[in-house]
Amino acid sequence: MKFKEINPSPRTLMTPGPVEADPRVLRAMGAHILGQFDPEFTALMNETMEMERYVFQTQNKMTYLVDTTSRGGLETVLTGAICPGDKVLIPAFGRFGYLLAEILERCGADITLLEREWGTVFEPEEIEEALKKDSYKAVAFIHGETSTSMMQPLKEIGEICEKYGALLIVDAVATLGGAEVHVDDWKLSACISGTQKCISAPSGSALITYNEQIEEIVKKRKKVEKGIRTADDVNGSLAGIPSNYLDLAQLEDYWSPRRLNHHTEATSMQYAVHEALRCIMDETLEARWARHSLNDKALCAGLNAMGLSIFGDIEHKMPVVTAINIPEGVDGKVIRGTLLNEFGIEIATSFGPLDGKILRIGNMGYSSQKRNILILLGALEAVMLQNHVKIATGEGVAAAMEVYKNAEK
Amino acid sequence: MKFKEINPSPRTLMTPGPVEADPRVLRAMGAHILGQFDPEFTALMNETMEMERYVFQTQNKMTYLVDTTSRGGLETVLTGAICPGDKVLIPAFGRFGYLLAEILERCGADITLLEREWGTVFEPEEIEEALKKDSYKAVAFIHGETSTSMMQPLKEIGEICEKYGALLIVDAVATLGGAEVHVDDWKLSACISGTQKCISAPSGSALITYNEQIEEIVKKRKKVEKGIRTADDVNGSLAGIPSNYLDLAQLEDYWSPRRLNHHTEATSMQYAVHEALRCIMDETLEARWARHSLNDKALCAGLNAMGLSIFGDIEHKMPVVTAINIPEGVDGKVIRGTLLNEFGIEIATSFGPLDGKILRIGNMGYSSQKRNILILLGALEAVMLQNHVKIATGEGVAAAMEVYKNAEK
Repeated sequence: MKFKEINPSPRTLMTPGPVEADPRVLRAMGAHILGQFDPEFTALMNETMEMERYVFQTQNKMTYLVDTTSRGGLETVLTGAICPGDKVLIPAFGRFGYLLAEILERCGADITLLEREWGTVFEPEEIEEALKKDSYKAVAFIHGETSTSMMQPLKEIGEICEKYGALLIVDAVATLGGAEVHVDDWKLSACISGTQKCISAPSGSALITYNEQIEEIVKKRKKVEKGIRTADDVNGSLAGIPSNYLDLAQLEDYWSPRRLNHHTEATSMQYAVHEALRCIMDETLEARWARHSLNDKALCAGLNAMGLSIFGDIEHKMPVVTAINIPEGVDGKVIRGTLLNEFGIEIATSFGPLDGKILRIGNMGYSSQKRNILILLGALEAVMLQNHVKIATGEGVAAAMEVYKNAEK
Repeated sequence: MKFKEINPSPRTLMTPGPVEADPRVLRAMGAHILGQFDPEFTALMNETMEMERYVFQTQNKMTYLVDTTSRGGLETVLTGAICPGDKVLIPAFGRFGYLLAEILERCGADITLLEREWGTVFEPEEIEEALKKDSYKAVAFIHGETSTSMMQPLKEIGEICEKYGALLIVDAVATLGGAEVHVDDWKLSACISGTQKCISAPSGSALITYNEQIEEIVKKRKKVEKGIRTADDVNGSLAGIPSNYLDLAQLEDYWSPRRLNHHTEATSMQYAVHEALRCIMDETLEARWARHSLNDKALCAGLNAMGLSIFGDIEHKMPVVTAINIPEGVDGKVIRGTLLNEFGIEIATSFGPLDGKILRIGNMGYSSQKRNILILLGALEAVMLQNHVKIATGEGVAAAMEVYKNAEK
């Protein structure tokens, strides 16, 4: 036949997602299919919820999966919690802040954008000032802005939002499982993540959690489908949710003991996430955060020693993404192409104003390994030299190795 | 650890979905992750489109996947093709007709429901009469209504819709890959399917196709996100699409040579569908339709010989689902429970008015095997006897075997 079986070339994925799935996760997906209401399968769904609560550091009952990629999980939570006309403040410090605005505009929310230069984060005072000036139903924030590599501290902002009575809805797609996220401690009303970054499963599922305040809103927006409605079902008092597929109310019914039929749960992705969460529990979150942090330190030491410059406000850089300024006269596409085609290593470009100006290196999940950091630094040195960039040869890998050596002491 | 690795009990899935995934498909998902813009990965996306065109029997350029279950694919196509205020006729002959209405109501379409008794299908004249009386932008139809086991003939209806200038959007979630579907010959404007039924991959992806007429509508509704918008991008003249994730315009850009970043394609599900489509091409559609049809004949012969009665208008029964009337005095839940717990075989109940009145048996994809039909008939006989149903013992399996024997001649 013209079409061959799947047989991908070897790849080391050092982009900010998708990254390599843990081999345990890939193996779990090979298990045969269970029916969606098979007690063995619903038991797995419940276990997934329980493990997800650990990973999100939350006690929220409503902690489950949406059968979309992370973007769909964001839309599900945002359009479930925010009604048409609700005022939402979006402090945007990169592309994904605009995505939150885009999603909310489509569902009729009244958006106020606070903008900041790409490569920086917000001060808590800026948020407080905005909340003082006007009253908002919610603040929607990116935690790790992969387009710029910046990470927004959220603890103080959670307190400010609580003080001013605004929900705080957070996109932790890039950080969950790699950098610290504490949903309850930080007073996040809702938090959304994906699978293809630090969780190290394939893309195709979104992890979500939200508190009772949002549960209450969802209850008031609920509408049960005619085909399966019973006499006990009443329609809610708030505006209905715009999408049927991305409907938090129906998803809640499906993930709760009622198990009301909605979509058919994505069986193999459920297996994948279940195993990915088990991997995190085996490693523990603390060890996982430390691993990402150490690999980040080694990577940055290597880049600095080589003489490459790291983009943005270093103090607020995510430990799981590093952006480097593309040296003058060099085409980023050529660097990426050579790394991919000659070394089988993938790194990423950026978007919008940073497109062609920075290269982004991911250090996420299963891909976050000493071996990958060292291999990448060696390859990057060779490719930079090939492109006539003046760098300190032999320094990059050595500096990274020194970081690892010191960490062992 | 408290949570064990995935290790499902053996199961034979004879429900109308999810059914067993082809073992080749499960193996394909074990391949390591490729980046979403890796040329090897985008080549796979293009191959998937090409194979999908064969399975849908269409030349439509716009033939690709949505990273949702089938329900999300339906919503994506419906809310992309239908603008707020558009008049849509929905002839409903079971639960899933109401689902189409539900989805379209949420996006502000002006719905007219034609209803029919569950267990029957529409005559082409009924549709023509409705289109004569009033002018509609589109007709939305279920092809295989799994809630009742009925299959709607569509060829004449396609001609009628063309005559009256209405789009015909068809849900072939239950039939594609198991029963005949001819998108171009039947003049379907769009067709949507899932993966977890006759395609025999896990749930979690939706197959969609639509013609140039719908492409034109989508073009006029397009809106590119601020974070990645360029000077060449203009917003369209029609109402924007309500969802960002389920946005046909953005999905088109992602699946076309422009490869404009939207979500991160669900890598392993992409592998799964690619392999499932390869399995269909290996078998050929004609052989696959014949296989499902033969197994259906054997199943029905067995059920009849046993003395069980088949629900609905037999002439319009889907070859991939059979519903039996639950004998008086018997609890369908007990039948299903014993089949699952003692025999490891899963069959399904139904919804709404048919809940507790019929049991539904699937005969789909990889689960559609002679062996499964024979095993199920034997098990069903035993369970019916245990529940004091008067059936002709020894007749069911024998009648099915006779069908297979005759087919070999």
